[in-house]
Amino acid sequence: MNPASRPSPVVPTVDLAAPGVRHGHLRLPYSRDDSAWGSVMIPITVVVGGEGPTALLTGGNHGDEYEGPAALFDLAQRLTPEAVSGRVIIVPAMNYPAFAAGTRTSPIDRGNLNRSFPGRPDGTVTEKIADYFTRHLVPLADIVLDFHSGGRTLDFVPYAAAHELPDKVQEARCFAAVAAFGAPYSMRMREIDAVGMYDTTVEEMGKVFVTTELGGGGTASARTIAIARRGVANVLRHAGILAGQPEPAASRFLDMPSDDCFVFAEEAGLVAFARDLGEEVSEGEVVALIHPIARTGLAPLAMRAKHGGILAARHFPGLVKPGDCLFVTATLEEAP
Amino acid sequence: MNPASRPSPVVPTVDLAAPGVRHGHLRLPYSRDDSAWGSVMIPITVVVGGEGPTALLTGGNHGDEYEGPAALFDLAQRLTPEAVSGRVIIVPAMNYPAFAAGTRTSPIDRGNLNRSFPGRPDGTVTEKIADYFTRHLVPLADIVLDFHSGGRTLDFVPYAAAHELPDKVQEARCFAAVAAFGAPYSMRMREIDAVGMYDTTVEEMGKVFVTTELGGGGTASARTIAIARRGVANVLRHAGILAGQPEPAASRFLDMPSDDCFVFAEEAGLVAFARDLGEEVSEGEVVALIHPIARTGLAPLAMRAKHGGILAARHFPGLVKPGDCLFVTATLEEAP
Amino acid sequence: MNPASRPSPVVPTVDLAAPGVRHGHLRLPYSRDDSAWGSVMIPITVVVGGEGPTALLTGGNHGDEYEGPAALFDLAQRLTPEAVSGRVIIVPAMNYPAFAAGTRTSPIDRGNLNRSFPGRPDGTVTEKIADYFTRHLVPLADIVLDFHSGGRTLDFVPYAAAHELPDKVQEARCFAAVAAFGAPYSMRMREIDAVGMYDTTVEEMGKVFVTTELGGGGTASARTIAIARRGVANVLRHAGILAGQPEPAASRFLDMPSDDCFVFAEEAGLVAFARDLGEEVSEGEVVALIHPIARTGLAPLAMRAKHGGILAARHFPGLVKPGDCLFVTATLEEAP
Amino acid sequence: MNPASRPSPVVPTVDLAAPGVRHGHLRLPYSRDDSAWGSVMIPITVVVGGEGPTALLTGGNHGDEYEGPAALFDLAQRLTPEAVSGRVIIVPAMNYPAFAAGTRTSPIDRGNLNRSFPGRPDGTVTEKIADYFTRHLVPLADIVLDFHSGGRTLDFVPYAAAHELPDKVQEARCFAAVAAFGAPYSMRMREIDAVGMYDTTVEEMGKVFVTTELGGGGTASARTIAIARRGVANVLRHAGILAGQPEPAASRFLDMPSDDCFVFAEEAGLVAFARDLGEEVSEGEVVALIHPIARTGLAPLAMRAKHGGILAARHFPGLVKPGDCLFVTATLEEAP
Amino acid sequence: MNPASRPSPVVPTVDLAAPGVRHGHLRLPYSRDDSAWGSVMIPITVVVGGEGPTALLTGGNHGDEYEGPAALFDLAQRLTPEAVSGRVIIVPAMNYPAFAAGTRTSPIDRGNLNRSFPGRPDGTVTEKIADYFTRHLVPLADIVLDFHSGGRTLDFVPYAAAHELPDKVQEARCFAAVAAFGAPYSMRMREIDAVGMYDTTVEEMGKVFVTTELGGGGTASARTIAIARRGVANVLRHAGILAGQPEPAASRFLDMPSDDCFVFAEEAGLVAFARDLGEEVSEGEVVALIHPIARTGLAPLAMRAKHGGILAARHFPGLVKPGDCLFVTATLEEAP
Amino acid sequence: MNPASRPSPVVPTVDLAAPGVRHGHLRLPYSRDDSAWGSVMIPITVVVGGEGPTALLTGGNHGDEYEGPAALFDLAQRLTPEAVSGRVIIVPAMNYPAFAAGTRTSPIDRGNLNRSFPGRPDGTVTEKIADYFTRHLVPLADIVLDFHSGGRTLDFVPYAAAHELPDKVQEARCFAAVAAFGAPYSMRMREIDAVGMYDTTVEEMGKVFVTTELGGGGTASARTIAIARRGVANVLRHAGILAGQPEPAASRFLDMPSDDCFVFAEEAGLVAFARDLGEEVSEGEVVALIHPIARTGLAPLAMRAKHGGILAARHFPGLVKPGDCLFVTATLEEAP
Repeated sequence: MNPASRPSPVVPTVDLAAPGVRHGHLRLPYSRDDSAWGSVMIPITVVVGGEGPTALLTGGNHGDEYEGPAALFDLAQRLTPEAVSGRVIIVPAMNYPAFAAGTRTSPIDRGNLNRSFPGRPDGTVTEKIADYFTRHLVPLADIVLDFHSGGRTLDFVPYAAAHELPDKVQEARCFAAVAAFGAPYSMRMREIDAVGMYDTTVEEMGKVFVTTELGGGGTASARTIAIARRGVANVLRHAGILAGQPEPAASRFLDMPSDDCFVFAEEAGLVAFARDLGEEVSEGEVVALIHPIARTGLAPLAMRAKHGGILAARHFPGLVKPGDCLFVTATLEEAP
Repeated sequence: MNPASRPSPVVPTVDLAAPGVRHGHLRLPYSRDDSAWGSVMIPITVVVGGEGPTALLTGGNHGDEYEGPAALFDLAQRLTPEAVSGRVIIVPAMNYPAFAAGTRTSPIDRGNLNRSFPGRPDGTVTEKIADYFTRHLVPLADIVLDFHSGGRTLDFVPYAAAHELPDKVQEARCFAAVAAFGAPYSMRMREIDAVGMYDTTVEEMGKVFVTTELGGGGTASARTIAIARRGVANVLRHAGILAGQPEPAASRFLDMPSDDCFVFAEEAGLVAFARDLGEEVSEGEVVALIHPIARTGLAPLAMRAKHGGILAARHFPGLVKPGDCLFVTATLEEAP
Repeated sequence: MNPASRPSPVVPTVDLAAPGVRHGHLRLPYSRDDSAWGSVMIPITVVVGGEGPTALLTGGNHGDEYEGPAALFDLAQRLTPEAVSGRVIIVPAMNYPAFAAGTRTSPIDRGNLNRSFPGRPDGTVTEKIADYFTRHLVPLADIVLDFHSGGRTLDFVPYAAAHELPDKVQEARCFAAVAAFGAPYSMRMREIDAVGMYDTTVEEMGKVFVTTELGGGGTASARTIAIARRGVANVLRHAGILAGQPEPAASRFLDMPSDDCFVFAEEAGLVAFARDLGEEVSEGEVVALIHPIARTGLAPLAMRAKHGGILAARHFPGLVKPGDCLFVTATLEEAP
Repeated sequence: MNPASRPSPVVPTVDLAAPGVRHGHLRLPYSRDDSAWGSVMIPITVVVGGEGPTALLTGGNHGDEYEGPAALFDLAQRLTPEAVSGRVIIVPAMNYPAFAAGTRTSPIDRGNLNRSFPGRPDGTVTEKIADYFTRHLVPLADIVLDFHSGGRTLDFVPYAAAHELPDKVQEARCFAAVAAFGAPYSMRMREIDAVGMYDTTVEEMGKVFVTTELGGGGTASARTIAIARRGVANVLRHAGILAGQPEPAASRFLDMPSDDCFVFAEEAGLVAFARDLGEEVSEGEVVALIHPIARTGLAPLAMRAKHGGILAARHFPGLVKPGDCLFVTATLEEAP
Repeated sequence: MNPASRPSPVVPTVDLAAPGVRHGHLRLPYSRDDSAWGSVMIPITVVVGGEGPTALLTGGNHGDEYEGPAALFDLAQRLTPEAVSGRVIIVPAMNYPAFAAGTRTSPIDRGNLNRSFPGRPDGTVTEKIADYFTRHLVPLADIVLDFHSGGRTLDFVPYAAAHELPDKVQEARCFAAVAAFGAPYSMRMREIDAVGMYDTTVEEMGKVFVTTELGGGGTASARTIAIARRGVANVLRHAGILAGQPEPAASRFLDMPSDDCFVFAEEAGLVAFARDLGEEVSEGEVVALIHPIARTGLAPLAMRAKHGGILAARHFPGLVKPGDCLFVTATLEEAP
Repeated sequence: MNPASRPSPVVPTVDLAAPGVRHGHLRLPYSRDDSAWGSVMIPITVVVGGEGPTALLTGGNHGDEYEGPAALFDLAQRLTPEAVSGRVIIVPAMNYPAFAAGTRTSPIDRGNLNRSFPGRPDGTVTEKIADYFTRHLVPLADIVLDFHSGGRTLDFVPYAAAHELPDKVQEARCFAAVAAFGAPYSMRMREIDAVGMYDTTVEEMGKVFVTTELGGGGTASARTIAIARRGVANVLRHAGILAGQPEPAASRFLDMPSDDCFVFAEEAGLVAFARDLGEEVSEGEVVALIHPIARTGLAPLAMRAKHGGILAARHFPGLVKPGDCLFVTATLEEAP
């Protein structure tokens, strides 16, 4: 049977359409050694108010990124149908097994949810989650906001972002939503490899899509959580689901014009950065040293920027391995 | 046989006394399934110049704390005998197996080196390392500087610290060295449980001892590495080993006057801090929320400061478990 | 190449057709780190007597279910060609790697054999086993008896079962074999998700198929083993392969008329059942309490029957997780 | 320093003495890779009423035994100071890390708590728990009731038990409490190896001590939970802490007069019991068969009773390994 | 999208075509928990000289086979463009993750690279490596030499080999290259299962292909490394890429005329070989004993040759499991 | 209680003294998650004939060394009381858990048995085994032969050995037994660290003690097994337990006169030996190259002999880590 014609095994425990607010789960049967008739339970909140569009708000696409879940668990317990024109569907921890484990990928199948779209109803647990979003939740939405941060191994200056799209009208609507979000930075993303991403799946369905990178390191700060909370409220106001105008915020616009923005380590060692996130670096400047660790007395390897700009992202852990992206520089641009 | 009378199995591959600079290892035989006649190799640098005292500089006591190793691998490859009056012994990664794994404790025996002193020559690998320091390296030293940070699971405002000691002359010498270090904060530490600590072992041998907490999260920033580099140079200048005076630096003095400075989580969940490190908090103020993660729609648990002051330390990962120390407040005091 | 046209890599070490009794293995090459040219060896017994039909008898489809293997290892060493009219093929441990590990799924690939049908000759080890049954063993059979129990995490009242089938003649022949089996209970099974099941594959090939649930908990009792032994002998008599009539036994007929028969846990905790298997429960009655375990003094969650009947199945381990099926009620019916 | 003179690192979060009911934790600091300043949190309830003795009630000494925890979590949330003459201290899950993992031993250090007494304040996590009971909780008690069952790998007929003791007055008081408990069976236990047991530590302090084995298999049934609940209430009534008389119950008295009561497997294989728990077996009778699993067609090994009596305990999982205790027979005796 | 039309995610860090010598990596992005933007880095050397054919030289197809990597890391650091007519592409460790771990298969996905061809650009890490070779490296080559040995679990007499091919001209060119290699033995390989092999993929593209088995046991000796070094130089001379004639060497030609050359263990135990590699064995002769290990006093199982010849390969570890290939006999033949 | 006064928990299942031959086990209770009342079962054979001394023959002290177990499982099933003057106690796999796992150390506690003597009755499983030998088996013996080889990670030229001892009469008796053994090499061992060794424990009890190194790599060859079988028979003849004279054999006598005989790796990489075991090497000669593996084009590190002689031992796996002993040279001497 064609996988796409098979029913999803996921069962929502709450109605996704009726007026009111409901907190429940997406129940995904998962038979395993420690529970023959067990399930994965992904929390979901649905708030349905008066007439209006539907927003789908997601966090925990990667399980070790916390600004989105912090803003969405908070929103889910405070939002009322009375405040909503339309519908808000909140899934604060899409890849719940990964989120509960505090890891990027699922401990069940090591699936990276954001490389598993559009998914399969008869695939791995992670692919089944992707499939349910693709075929059941995204089609309900007019606007989709998916929260990311750097996770345990990357750190970013905080930004909201959209992609260049073939449909320029859709692209403009996405960047308008990014502007409404009001993060300290806004980014035009060009993905090196967009295969399997939630972003691509949503965009190909013609939706307004906003993504973010709001920090990283496997934690969240008071400052970055505040950015996330304000951003989600702003996007809902922008969409007309919440009343009022987005709270204005200064945002600097960034671009990554070349692959040279990405600098990869070719040696293992201890990383000593010479610049911190948000600082300006010029082409050829030493951004970090990599010290070999097995013996003392050796000169460290100097890692230089190949492209000037601000330091927009960096490897987070103190140790680095060959092939790890060590840092990313981005250029300040005029907003589109 | 009394363990203390047994010889240490550790063999240094370089002379610790002769003039000049030498880079080598402390070789500790470690027979195991994947190497019957294998060893742990702990990098060490010895720089011996003219007359003067001996400083023992250590990092990587916990394997996921990076400011100290970054400063010490750097110093080890730059320091020359000509610049040194006396001797500098540098061990940037004391618990090398933990450091190479990027974990607090040793992957070999899960030993927490800073709870394994004074060690045993016939104990675990971690206890053998402790014993070698206790009986062979610390006795050579006049001043000992041991770098710590928060590691993967804690984050601190950057400070150098000494302990209250029964010998007030020794205590004053320790705090003088802390002041010379010149970190943004200086701390009077009162350990809840000093059993097994390197600190206690060194202090009981009458040495000048300085410890630090310079950041955390399992990473190091350009800013905190600069603090570490300046601090070690300042301490060596203060000791008369390097020429010149310590570089002056403003430092705010902190105290933890009560157990109420420590606030522990009693529920598991997603942490959303409302305050960041270094910010002032007042008694009873909500410092963080803990959101239950298994379902949406529940009110988070508000975690309040029991003692006002500045937020000096916090749990780092986005998820917390019952019993984890969630945050620490400290009070600003006059320097001693 | 189309997978279905590739040859199976499985090699039986004994002839499946010649008269007599042979004990051997299905050898499945499995190259891995600890044996470059290794194999999985699945024990098989073939007993070929005079004219008659072929029965395929299987256990260990899930590796932690023991009534079937206990009856079939016993039968395999006692059955003689003289006693057999036709052929009996016995595979007491279909998913042998799982059986040898005492786990539901295979330790090699975590494959759940009963969700891996029809299998692939170039797939995982578990899929290769499924493919060999689908293309080589099931086609030889007229009647197939596959033993199940609850495994480590479920427990059942003992029953034999067949499914509703589109071909009512085939269905009637299946229920006749279920009746012959003579378990304390007989069940009309309606699978929630029949994708990938051995049952479905066999039934679609038009065979008479009987399955069972004879207990659980990862053990077998003297009582349930006796049920299995009598059942297999009865089925072989019913098929005319063994001489004589099935030994008569009282059996109560059960049905699961609705999804409400299945009750799932939504909280984690310690399970305290108020009813034992086989007891009658009425709709709305508390069947079990779930105590939160992280602290004392909290009221347990009362789990109530949504559908009255007898308690037919229950979660076995003392702890439960959200999404686990906690219990199943079934209704007593007239036998078909 | 003598370990016994070191303070315990355990901190109770509630007062153990004041009148009233309090639910809290024993907090045991446990520094580790995933929480540098983490703790183990063991739930505890203290109920203090009018004048009277102190009972210490414990479950989860082994983490996969559930009758005791089920009875004690239930009692802890229902018991009021008004109902109590004296004090009841309830720790439903002594080895909480093991209990939360559903395993006999602690996942932290693989410690078997019931072989770790009297414990050490500077030992493993499990030894620190033992030490806290030995030096802080048991001394508060007049009567101690510790619940056991067979856990995942053993199953027992349900009994309460006491040991032969050198002090015959103490022994008689213990057996009087066993009789009050009112389990279906009562046992005179002779431990093969009492080194490290909680039982021995408590008895040597002169306390009245009752232990149990109430089932097993890593589960609990409605029937065995009811035995535990009635037993704990009966013991508290017997001690005068709860009002009223113990509820009378028929109990058969058992003894294990010889090491021949224990039968060990010398071969690995699949176990097929011929007798169930509570059935009578005579000397020399086949109690179980062990089928080799790697091939079919081999005769099973017949395991015979060396000592007649009732089948009092058995190996639970379907597979057995050489050296496993396969079953235990016990003889029915006159109660002491 | 058809996988074959997707671009490979692999990026070479050096030019594969320009004259000169370059050492770099094949960088394969691999996002995972411990590096969100990490990569696998496979070392590669390209040496481009004057006009001539291209040779692709590979080792580490299985990660625990060392003669090839030893010869190729050596060659890569010594070969100069001046010495080369044409091009030499050297990948000493094809499955680098497996090679770095010292295991046959990849620790990332347990992929056996030599069963993963032709690969997929959107598959596992191992399948992505295979795909890059299939679509990007092999097409550049005229002659391909892939080094194998027995790895940790097999040991071989040292031989070079080619396969019987449908194109007899290609086959003859392959055997000519085998003869040029000059190993102590040369083999006509008949693979039992050629599905997924690099060999088959390369041969189907019409290339001259030589493979080897040069020893085993997870090590390499001075003798076998010398065979590998001489062999690769000989093949490059034979191809006209290096100047001069292949160094002549005596080689005995082997054939495996029947499946009976392979003898599999059906019991587990301790292996005691009675013959060593290269010794002659006759049909029916005892080549090895398998001692059961769980008890003493049992007769070992005698494993006999089913086909006379020389002992060409054997199981290496001291313990054997059912289904392991225990030994292989081969017959001496006239060279083709 | 003093550990040495506690009884051993080990129970032999056979009588160690009565005339005749008996095959049984040393049963060591080992309670664990997967068997609450489980045991470790160490196979043992006792052969008691006429008057004479007692020999204790052991293998599997390290679990991945196979010549000894191969010779002793063979001897155990062939030796008859009639052939024996005195008593032979055979334990082919002392550290049975390690032997069954094929690893140097025990999978239960990672204990290296040969560093665990004299052991403890209340220690780890490995320490309990050591204690039983120290207090129960060695005292029965007059002569002790303990078989070793290199295991998975070392390889040796085959030799029997004894140690220099303070009692020169005892030493001479040991070397006489070594000469009787008749291995291709005989060695005077000087242990760098004799703490915890079986050898030391046995020698301190005044026994004649012979040890061996007969090969390695985690395998055994027909040649080295023959050496072991002949050696044990020769030692029993030498002791007068078997009739006849030791079979004469040429043996070259080796000495390790200095720590410079041991050469350790200080870099990780791929090992390419230039010399094989038994070959002569001169001081300063390159014995092996270590190739860095993370990139091609780097010069390997040349590892040179510090002391001339023959290559007596070498690191076995293809990869080496810093601190691993890479090779050992030994000098040929006159036999003592």
